[in-house]
Amino acid sequence: MGVIKPSLPKGTRDFLPEQMFRRQFVLETVRETFERYGYAPLETPSIEKLSVLSGKYGDEGENLIFKVLRRGTGLEKLLRDESEFVVNDFGQLVDEALRYDLTVPLSRVIAMHQNELTFPFKRYQIQPVWRADRPQRGRYREFYQCDIDTVGTPSMLADAEAASIVFEVLSTLGFQNFKLKLNNRKLLNGLLNACEIAGSQATSVFIAIDKMDKIGLDGVRNELKASELSSTQIQTLLGTLEIEGDPESVLVKLTDDFGDRDPQLLTGVQELQEMTACMLELGVPIDAFSIDLHLVRGLGYYTGPIHESVITEPNIGSLTGGGRYDRLIGMFLGRDIPACGTAFGIERIIDVMSQLDLFPKQTNGTQVLVTAFEPSTRAASLSFAGELRKAGLRVETYFEVCKLKKQFTYAHKKHIPFVATIGPDEASRGVASFKDMETGEQIVADPMGVVQRMVEKQGVGSS
Amino acid sequence: MGVIKPSLPKGTRDFLPEQMFRRQFVLETVRETFERYGYAPLETPSIEKLSVLSGKYGDEGENLIFKVLRRGTGLEKLLRDESEFVVNDFGQLVDEALRYDLTVPLSRVIAMHQNELTFPFKRYQIQPVWRADRPQRGRYREFYQCDIDTVGTPSMLADAEAASIVFEVLSTLGFQNFKLKLNNRKLLNGLLNACEIAGSQATSVFIAIDKMDKIGLDGVRNELKASELSSTQIQTLLGTLEIEGDPESVLVKLTDDFGDRDPQLLTGVQELQEMTACMLELGVPIDAFSIDLHLVRGLGYYTGPIHESVITEPNIGSLTGGGRYDRLIGMFLGRDIPACGTAFGIERIIDVMSQLDLFPKQTNGTQVLVTAFEPSTRAASLSFAGELRKAGLRVETYFEVCKLKKQFTYAHKKHIPFVATIGPDEASRGVASFKDMETGEQIVADPMGVVQRMVEKQGVGSS
Repeated sequence: MGVIKPSLPKGTRDFLPEQMFRRQFVLETVRETFERYGYAPLETPSIEKLSVLSGKYGDEGENLIFKVLRRGTGLEKLLRDESEFVVNDFGQLVDEALRYDLTVPLSRVIAMHQNELTFPFKRYQIQPVWRADRPQRGRYREFYQCDIDTVGTPSMLADAEAASIVFEVLSTLGFQNFKLKLNNRKLLNGLLNACEIAGSQATSVFIAIDKMDKIGLDGVRNELKASELSSTQIQTLLGTLEIEGDPESVLVKLTDDFGDRDPQLLTGVQELQEMTACMLELGVPIDAFSIDLHLVRGLGYYTGPIHESVITEPNIGSLTGGGRYDRLIGMFLGRDIPACGTAFGIERIIDVMSQLDLFPKQTNGTQVLVTAFEPSTRAASLSFAGELRKAGLRVETYFEVCKLKKQFTYAHKKHIPFVATIGPDEASRGVASFKDMETGEQIVADPMGVVQRMVEKQGVGSS
Repeated sequence: MGVIKPSLPKGTRDFLPEQMFRRQFVLETVRETFERYGYAPLETPSIEKLSVLSGKYGDEGENLIFKVLRRGTGLEKLLRDESEFVVNDFGQLVDEALRYDLTVPLSRVIAMHQNELTFPFKRYQIQPVWRADRPQRGRYREFYQCDIDTVGTPSMLADAEAASIVFEVLSTLGFQNFKLKLNNRKLLNGLLNACEIAGSQATSVFIAIDKMDKIGLDGVRNELKASELSSTQIQTLLGTLEIEGDPESVLVKLTDDFGDRDPQLLTGVQELQEMTACMLELGVPIDAFSIDLHLVRGLGYYTGPIHESVITEPNIGSLTGGGRYDRLIGMFLGRDIPACGTAFGIERIIDVMSQLDLFPKQTNGTQVLVTAFEPSTRAASLSFAGELRKAGLRVETYFEVCKLKKQFTYAHKKHIPFVATIGPDEASRGVASFKDMETGEQIVADPMGVVQRMVEKQGVGSS
C-alpha cells in the first residue's frame, strides 16, 4: 500500500473530541438561549450560485470567495485529456461558490420563501463560512458564524432583544468583565449634519473615529485634519464624541446640545432611549451597557442602533456585533424590509473561554468505563453497562479482555472519572467494584448504587 | 435597487425552521445515544486537499467530487482580465475539493493525530458531504452523513456495539418494523472457496447475489450462469444462501455443511457467533436481527461482519449500513488498523419519519407569545416573559403594539400553543390572561401559575 502523506488545506482545522465537546458546549448554550427567545433555526446550503454572492462583499470580499469548479463530464474530460486548453470565459469554469456569510443567504431565503414564512421572522443560523483570507492567529479560512436576526419589524424592542440576548449568552457562558457598547447610525449621521460636515466626507470621518481605540484622540484628530475638516468642526465633533456618563444623561446632553439642529440626530437619540428602556425592562443591568459615541462598526449597511460587546481582559476586540439594517435584506426582493440582529464571534468566544478557563471540567465524554475482566463475566458487564446507560449515564465497555492495568490506563488517558469492574464474584451478586479515579475510593455497588454515588459526587443523573 | 432573481444550486436545499426542528430532533437523538456509548464527536474541514481525496472513490466517485478553484490574485486576475487564456495543467486550476464522505477524513485524522488520540478511538461524525450526482427524489448534492466508528480493536464486541446502537437509535426514534440483517465477508469469501469459485470471479458473483432483493432467485441464477459458474457451483451456492432460521441454527448448519472445507468460512461463522452473543448481552432482542447470507454491501472494503437495517414499510432500502474494514483506515498511515462502524442514512431516516408521522408534535418552537397590549404595560409584559424564560420556557414577546387579533393570528400561524396578554389591570396585579390556543380555555395566572399550567398540559417544565 502506497503511503500518501496527509495534510490539511491552509487555514482549516480538525476538531478532535476534546475541542468538539467544548465547541458543542458553547453552541448548545447559544442555541438554547436563542430558542428561549423564540428564534428558530435556519440552515442554507454551503454552495450558493456565484451570481447570488457576486457584488455583495465589495472588491476585497469578492476576491476571498471560494469558487467551485463546474461539474459535468464535458469540462472534466477536457481538463484531464487535453495537454492544454483555452478558456475564454470565467463562467466556463465556475458557476457556484461557498457561503461567505449568513446575511446574503438570509436575504435570499426571505425572497424565495416569503410566502412560507411568518413575519416578523426570527431566525438563528449557525454554520461555517469560507473566506480565502491570509490565515493567521485566530483567523481561519473555514470558520463558524452564528447570527440571530429579526426581519420585518422597525420596533426598537427587537434591537433591545438582540442586545439582551448577547448579555444573557455571555453571562451564561461565564464572562464577567464584558460591556455592551451602543450607538446609532442616525445619531452619527445627524451629528455630522449638525457639524456641517459634507456627506461626501462622511465615510472618511467614520473611518477615523472608528479608530479611537487604536490610535487615540490625537490620532483621530490628525486623520480628521487630513480629511479637510475645519478646526471648529473637529472640536465640536470630538468634543461631542467624548460625552460620557450613564446612557440617559448622555442622550439628554445630546438632545440639549443638538436637538434643534438636526432631526436625524434626534431620531437616533430617541431610538436609543427606547432601546435602552427595553433592555432594562428585559432585565439587563444598567451597568452592563453604555453609549459609546465612537462606535461606528465597519459595515456600511447599518441604518439605526448598532452595538458591540467587548471584554477588557484579554483585550481582543469585540465578541459580538450587530445592529439595525433596514435597507439590506430586501436586496433580492426589490423592496426594503426592516431588520436587525447580532452576530456572535463564536470562534473568538471559544478561544477566549479557553484562555479564561471558563469551560466546565465535565464534558459529554464517557463517565464510566466498565472493564473486560474475563470472558465469563462479559454478559454481566454488558448488562451492568446497559443499566447505567438506561439511567442516562455515558458508559463505555472495554472491548478486549487484557490486563486491568492497561484498561485503567485507557480510562486515565481519556479522563474517564469512574471505572467499574465485574469479576466472577461481583457477577454472581449483580454488583461491580466501582472506583473513583480521582480519589482512588472504591465501593461495591449495584447499578442503582453506582448512579446514586455519581449523583452525590458530580451532580450527574439522568440527563 | 436592481433585483436579482435568486435561486439555489441544483440538488441543494434550504431548511426552514419547521424542517430544522425535525432535523435537530433526529440529530440530537442520535448524538445523545452515541455519547451514551462513549463515542466522541469529531469534525473535519469541508475542504480537503484534492490529493487526499483523489483515487479513493473509484472512477465514478472521482467524477462526482466538487473541486474548488485555486485562490490567489494571480489566477483570478488572469481569469478575469484576459479575453482568453491557456491552461495546460488541471492542477493550475484546482488543488482542493469538498468532503465526499466521512471515512477518508477519519483515516487522514488517524494518520495526522495518532499521538493525540487514545485507542481504541471511538468517534462519531455528523457533517455534510458533497457529490455532484444527478439530483433526483431523495438524492441531493449536499447532504448530511452520520457515522460512528471504532478504530483500533479487532473485538467483535465493537461490531456488536455498532449494531446495538442502530437498534437503540431506531427504536428511540419510534421505528417499529425494522430488522437488522447480518452477514460476514469472511464467510462469503470462504463459501466461494468451498464452492471452488475462482477469486477472479468473486466480484461478479457478489454483485449478482447482492441483487437478490431486486431480481429474485431466478435473476441471480441467470447472472451466475453468465459468470460461467457450473451448475453444481450455482446449486451449492444458492442452496446455501437460502439457509434461514434463527441466527444460531443458520450458523450451526453452515459449520456442519462447510466447516471442514474452508477455514475462512469457519472464522466468519465464529465472528458472527461472537457478535450475535454480544448483541444479545447488550440487550438487542433476538427477533430484531437475523443472518442474511445474501447481504454483500456494495463497498469493496469490508473484511468481516457486515450489517444493514431495513424497514418493511415503506420499502425504501436500508436505513443504516456498516461493517468491519480492517484494511482501509490505514490508507494514510501505511499499516493496517482494525476498524468497524456503521453509517446512519440520516436524510432517508428523516424522510421516512415524516412519511410514517414519527415526529413528536412538540418542537423546540416558541411555547408562549406575550402580546404587546399597550406601551404602558410593556415593562410588565417583558418582565413576565423574563420570568417564564427563567423557568425554561421558550417565550416570544410581540414587538409592536397593534390589534390583538393580528397578534393572535401571528401565534396561530406559528403554532404557538399559548398566548399571554397583560393589560393595565393584569399589570397592576402581576398576572396575565393566559389563553390555550388549542382549547380556547383562558385563565388568569402569575408566572408560576402559567408554568404550572403548562407542565400539566404538555409535560413541559424547565428543560
